[in-house]
Amino acid sequence: MTRVLIDCDPGHDDAMAILYAAKHLDLCAITTVHGNAPLEHTTRNALSLCTLAGLNVPVSAGADRPLVQPQLQKQTLHGKSGIDGAEMPEPDRDVTGEHAALTIIREAKRSPGELVLIAVGPMTNVALALRLEPKLPELLKGISIMGGSTTAGNVTPTAEFNLWADPEAAAAVFDCGIPVMMAGLNVTRQALIGAPHVARLHGTGGPVGKVMGDLQDFYATRSSAVYGLAGAPMHDACAVVPFVHPELIKHRACHVHMELASPQVRGTTVCDLRVFKSAPAAAARTQLPANALVALEIDGAAVVDVVVDAVLSYDA
Amino acid sequence: MTRVLIDCDPGHDDAMAILYAAKHLDLCAITTVHGNAPLEHTTRNALSLCTLAGLNVPVSAGADRPLVQPQLQKQTLHGKSGIDGAEMPEPDRDVTGEHAALTIIREAKRSPGELVLIAVGPMTNVALALRLEPKLPELLKGISIMGGSTTAGNVTPTAEFNLWADPEAAAAVFDCGIPVMMAGLNVTRQALIGAPHVARLHGTGGPVGKVMGDLQDFYATRSSAVYGLAGAPMHDACAVVPFVHPELIKHRACHVHMELASPQVRGTTVCDLRVFKSAPAAAARTQLPANALVALEIDGAAVVDVVVDAVLSYDA
Amino acid sequence: MTRVLIDCDPGHDDAMAILYAAKHLDLCAITTVHGNAPLEHTTRNALSLCTLAGLNVPVSAGADRPLVQPQLQKQTLHGKSGIDGAEMPEPDRDVTGEHAALTIIREAKRSPGELVLIAVGPMTNVALALRLEPKLPELLKGISIMGGSTTAGNVTPTAEFNLWADPEAAAAVFDCGIPVMMAGLNVTRQALIGAPHVARLHGTGGPVGKVMGDLQDFYATRSSAVYGLAGAPMHDACAVVPFVHPELIKHRACHVHMELASPQVRGTTVCDLRVFKSAPAAAARTQLPANALVALEIDGAAVVDVVVDAVLSYDA
Amino acid sequence: MTRVLIDCDPGHDDAMAILYAAKHLDLCAITTVHGNAPLEHTTRNALSLCTLAGLNVPVSAGADRPLVQPQLQKQTLHGKSGIDGAEMPEPDRDVTGEHAALTIIREAKRSPGELVLIAVGPMTNVALALRLEPKLPELLKGISIMGGSTTAGNVTPTAEFNLWADPEAAAAVFDCGIPVMMAGLNVTRQALIGAPHVARLHGTGGPVGKVMGDLQDFYATRSSAVYGLAGAPMHDACAVVPFVHPELIKHRACHVHMELASPQVRGTTVCDLRVFKSAPAAAARTQLPANALVALEIDGAAVVDVVVDAVLSYDA
Repeated sequence: MTRVLIDCDPGHDDAMAILYAAKHLDLCAITTVHGNAPLEHTTRNALSLCTLAGLNVPVSAGADRPLVQPQLQKQTLHGKSGIDGAEMPEPDRDVTGEHAALTIIREAKRSPGELVLIAVGPMTNVALALRLEPKLPELLKGISIMGGSTTAGNVTPTAEFNLWADPEAAAAVFDCGIPVMMAGLNVTRQALIGAPHVARLHGTGGPVGKVMGDLQDFYATRSSAVYGLAGAPMHDACAVVPFVHPELIKHRACHVHMELASPQVRGTTVCDLRVFKSAPAAAARTQLPANALVALEIDGAAVVDVVVDAVLSYDA
Repeated sequence: MTRVLIDCDPGHDDAMAILYAAKHLDLCAITTVHGNAPLEHTTRNALSLCTLAGLNVPVSAGADRPLVQPQLQKQTLHGKSGIDGAEMPEPDRDVTGEHAALTIIREAKRSPGELVLIAVGPMTNVALALRLEPKLPELLKGISIMGGSTTAGNVTPTAEFNLWADPEAAAAVFDCGIPVMMAGLNVTRQALIGAPHVARLHGTGGPVGKVMGDLQDFYATRSSAVYGLAGAPMHDACAVVPFVHPELIKHRACHVHMELASPQVRGTTVCDLRVFKSAPAAAARTQLPANALVALEIDGAAVVDVVVDAVLSYDA
Repeated sequence: MTRVLIDCDPGHDDAMAILYAAKHLDLCAITTVHGNAPLEHTTRNALSLCTLAGLNVPVSAGADRPLVQPQLQKQTLHGKSGIDGAEMPEPDRDVTGEHAALTIIREAKRSPGELVLIAVGPMTNVALALRLEPKLPELLKGISIMGGSTTAGNVTPTAEFNLWADPEAAAAVFDCGIPVMMAGLNVTRQALIGAPHVARLHGTGGPVGKVMGDLQDFYATRSSAVYGLAGAPMHDACAVVPFVHPELIKHRACHVHMELASPQVRGTTVCDLRVFKSAPAAAARTQLPANALVALEIDGAAVVDVVVDAVLSYDA
Repeated sequence: MTRVLIDCDPGHDDAMAILYAAKHLDLCAITTVHGNAPLEHTTRNALSLCTLAGLNVPVSAGADRPLVQPQLQKQTLHGKSGIDGAEMPEPDRDVTGEHAALTIIREAKRSPGELVLIAVGPMTNVALALRLEPKLPELLKGISIMGGSTTAGNVTPTAEFNLWADPEAAAAVFDCGIPVMMAGLNVTRQALIGAPHVARLHGTGGPVGKVMGDLQDFYATRSSAVYGLAGAPMHDACAVVPFVHPELIKHRACHVHMELASPQVRGTTVCDLRVFKSAPAAAARTQLPANALVALEIDGAAVVDVVVDAVLSYDA
C-alpha cells in the first residue's frame, strides 16, 4: 500500500480525494494550504472531514499566502467556507502545530523513497519544503499534483486555479529534478459527479454519504451554472488515481514550462506536446527534456465510480 | 466574386493557396514578405508562380524583416529557396516597385469595403499598412490570416511559425478593430496533400501540375520526416477557404491575445476558448471581447480536394 | 551646414528646437507624430509655428498612434492643444500629403550620407521609415533623439514620455545598426528656461518673441508646479545641440536596451554605464556592444542661452 | 544595544560587517546562505570567522539555492572559497543544525519588536522565514539589507549581485509590509578600504588584523582590477551602519519595485526617486506607497574608519 501525504485546500473535490486516498492508501498526513479559501478555512475543513469520516490522520497547517506574489483572491466556486453546501461537523481534534512544509520533510525522511506527495492545492507548501530540504526529491517516491491544463484554463484563458494561485511555487515544483505527475483540467473535467452519484451518496443513509452528497450536489450545481459542466469535477481525486487505479489514466512524459513573466499567461502550464519524428527542422526549436508526466487520457466515468465507491465505504 | 489581395511568403502551400484563390476569386494583387525564406526569394517565387500559371496579377515586395524584433532565422521546412523541390520557371515579369504596404492601402482604397486581405506569411506588411493608413480596417471587407494555433505550435511548444516570426506585427493585426479570421495549425494540419493528390497533379501532363506535384511531393516528404504528418499541410489555402468554400470550415468568435512579453510563450495566439454559461464566478477573470474568428473545425480532406481541383484547372 | 529633418510632436520645447535648428542648420523638412497631443494637434502646431516664424519648410504628418501598443493617453504637461499658453497664428499652409515616414525616406535618399534625422517625439515615424526602407541607416548621416533617461524617468519611475509612448518603435530605432545619439532627461532637465529668458523673449517686441515667451512661461509654470523644476526644460533642443554647439554636450558610447517585456519597466532606456577596467569577473555579465551615444553631461545654462539667442533672431 | 541577526554569505565584506556588528551590537545569531560561494563555503567561512575572532554566536546554515530560479553561478570576485586571500582558521565549532529560516523566526519571537534582521546575501532565507511565519514582520524591529542599486548594477547594467541572485526572494522581502532599509551599490561603493586601511589592520600584530588585512588586500586588488575601484567596497557593513553610526548614512522613503519579468532587467531594484511638487500631471503615473528606506548618501570614508576601528579592537 503506497504511503501518501496529501497537501490540499479543501474544497469539495479535495474532500472526495482524501476519502478515496484514505480508503486505499497509507495516508500518513494531511497538510493544508491557502487556495479555495483562506488557510484557516481549508484547515478547519480538513479537520472537520477527518472528524466526519473518523480518519486518524494528523493535519498540519501550512502557508497562508503564495511564495512570492500577493494573494490574488479569497473566494472561489467552493463558496465562502471553501466547502459550502453541507453542515460539516465541529472538528474533534486540532492541527499538529508543525508547519506543513516541515511535516512534508519529516514524513519523507521517515521512509526514504516510499512517500508519494500528492498536492492538490496551490504549491506553496511543497515549494517551501523543497527549499528547506534540497534532498526532498530524492527522499520521495514521487510527486503527483492536480493543477494546470494542456488545453483551456479556468481562471484565465490558459491558466488553472491551483497553479495560477502561486505560479512561482509551481515553477519550483516542476523544476525539482524528479518527474512531476500532473492531472490538469484537460482530464479532471472529464470526471464529473452528477445527480445519480449524488443519489448513491445520499443512499447510504450514513453521515459521510449525507455530507458528501450535499457537498457534491452544491458543487455540481455551481459548476453547471458557471461553466456549463454536466457535474462536479473530481479534480483532486485524479491526482490520486495513478496510485489506486492506474489503468484509468494515461500520461505522457514531456516538458512543462511554468509561465511566470507574462501578465496574460502567468500561471499556465506550457506543455510541449509536439511530436517530432526526426531531428527537427531549422524552424523548430529543440525540445527541452521531460520534467513531467502529464495526464492526457482518463476514463472519467470509471474514476467517478471508484471515488464514489470509496466514499460509500465509510458509512458501511 | 470577392476581391482579394494575398500577402505571402511562397512557400509550397502559399503557391497552392494563390492558385486556388486566383481560380475562384478576384485576386487583385500579390504582396510578398520575409518568412519561409528571405524576401528576395519569396518575391522571386511569387513572380515565378505567376509566370508558370500565367497569372496576370501585380506583385509588390514588402518587408524584409520583422516590425520590431531581429530576424530569427532564414530557413524552414521549405528549403533554401523557400520553395525547393521543383524547377520553377524564370520570372517573365518584375515587381511593381511599390512597397507591399502601400499596395495594400491603394488596393483597399480602390474599392472601399470590398477587399479581403488574406495574409499567409508573417504579418509585417499588414502591420505597416495599418500604421501608415489608420483607416485601413474600415476600408477592408475583412482580414483572413494563416497563423497561430489553438493547440500545439510548431516552432515552439505553443507558437506557429508565421506569427512567431513577427509577434509585434501580429499583435497590431489582432488589435486592428475588425475581427481577424484566423486559420491556425489546429485546422491547417488536417488539410494534408498526400501521394494520391500528388499523382492527380502529375496526371495533368501540364506544366502547372508537374511543378505543383513535385513541390508538394517534396513538402509532404519533409513534413512526414520531421513532424510525422501524413502529407503536406495546405496551411495557407485554409485562409482562402472561407471565401470560396465556406461550408468546409467553422469559426468561433473569441478573444485572441498575441503574447509578446514571455520569452517562452512569445508569438503564441492565446485564444480564450473558455465557455461560461453564466456570469463567471469570482475565480474567473472576465473575458475580453472577441477580436477574432478562430477556425475550430475543418473538413480537411474536402479542402485538399477543392484546392487540387483548382490547381488542375490551370493545365486544362 | 548640416542637413536635418526634424520629426516632432510640438510641443513647447519642440517649437524652440525647430526655431533653433532652422536658424543654424539646413532644415529640409518637418514631420509630425502623435505624442504631446493627438497627431492633428501636433501637425497644426507645426504648421502654425512655420507660419509664425516664416519658415519655408515642408511639413508632413505621420503616425497617429504607436507602432504596436494602443495609445496610452492624450494629454500631457503641454495642455490640450499640445502647445497651450499662447495664441498661435492660423496656419497659412498645409501638410504635404505625403506620410512622414515616406518623407524621411525621400529626404534621406536625396542626399545620401548627409541627412541627420532628429527625432524628438515618439519614434513611430522613424520606425516605420526604417522598416519601409531597410537601407535608411546607411543613407543617413546620423540619428539624434530626445528620449529616455540614464537616471529617473517622468511618466514612470524610470521611463521618459517619448519612448514610453511607443517602446516598440524606440527598440527598432536603437536596433537600427548605426549609433543613436540620445539626449535623455538626465541632461535635458538641466537646460531650463526661466523668468529671465522669458523676459528676453518678450523683449524683442516682435511676434515670435511674444508667442515663444508666452509659451515658455506657461510651460515653466507647469514644470515647476508638477515637478518642482526651476523652469521649462528645453528637452528637444538638446537633440539639436550636437550639430550646432557640440562643445556644450558630452556623450558616452554604450549599449542601450529598450525594455519592452516588463509592465513596470516598459519604455525605459536601460543604459549600460558600468565601467570595467579589465575582463569582467565571473559575476559580471559581458557587456553588449555600444549602439548609442548617450549624453551624460551638458552645459544647460549655455544651451538655453544659444537657443533663446536663435529664437530672438526671428524678430530681428 | 540593538539586537541583531546577520544573514550572510561571507564574503570579504560580510566578515568585516560581522565584526563591526558584533563589536557594537547584540549579535544573537549568524545565518548563512548561498551567494558569494556555495552554502557549504559561506557556512564554513562564517564558522572560521567566529573562531578567529572568538565570537560566541550560534551559526545556522540555510538555503543552498534561490527560492524559485535555478542557481545562476557559483563564483564571484570573492574567489573559489568565497573568501580567498588569507588562511582562515579551522572552525572550532559547528552549525546549530537548525535551518536558518527557523533560527530567524525563533530569534524574532524571543524578543518581539526588538530584533533587527540584517541580510547581506541573497534574500532566500529571509523570504523562507517570511512565508513560514507570516507574523515575522510585526515581530521584527526592522529589516536592513545590502542589495540593489539606485544607479548602475554590477552583474547586469542595473542589477546588483545579491538581489539578482534571488530576485523572487527579494520581491517577497520588499513586499513584507514593513519598510526595508536598503544599502545599495550607489552608497556601498563609496566605502572603500584601501592600502592605508590594510596597513592599519596589519599593524595590530594580532591574528584578526592579520587575516582581515590580507582578505581586504586581496579584495581591493580584485575590485580595482575588474571595476577600477579605488579599494575594497565595504558593501555589507553599510547595512549595519544605521544601527551603530546612523549619522553617517541618509535614507529616503520611496517605493522599490523588484523586477522579475524582464530577462534584461530581472533582479533590479527599480526605485521611484521622482519628486512631484504637486498632484502629477496626466502624463505622470501615480507613485506607489513607499516600502523602503533607500540609502542615498553616505560618508564612505567615515564608514570605513569606524569599521576598521571595530575590527582592530579584536586584537586589543
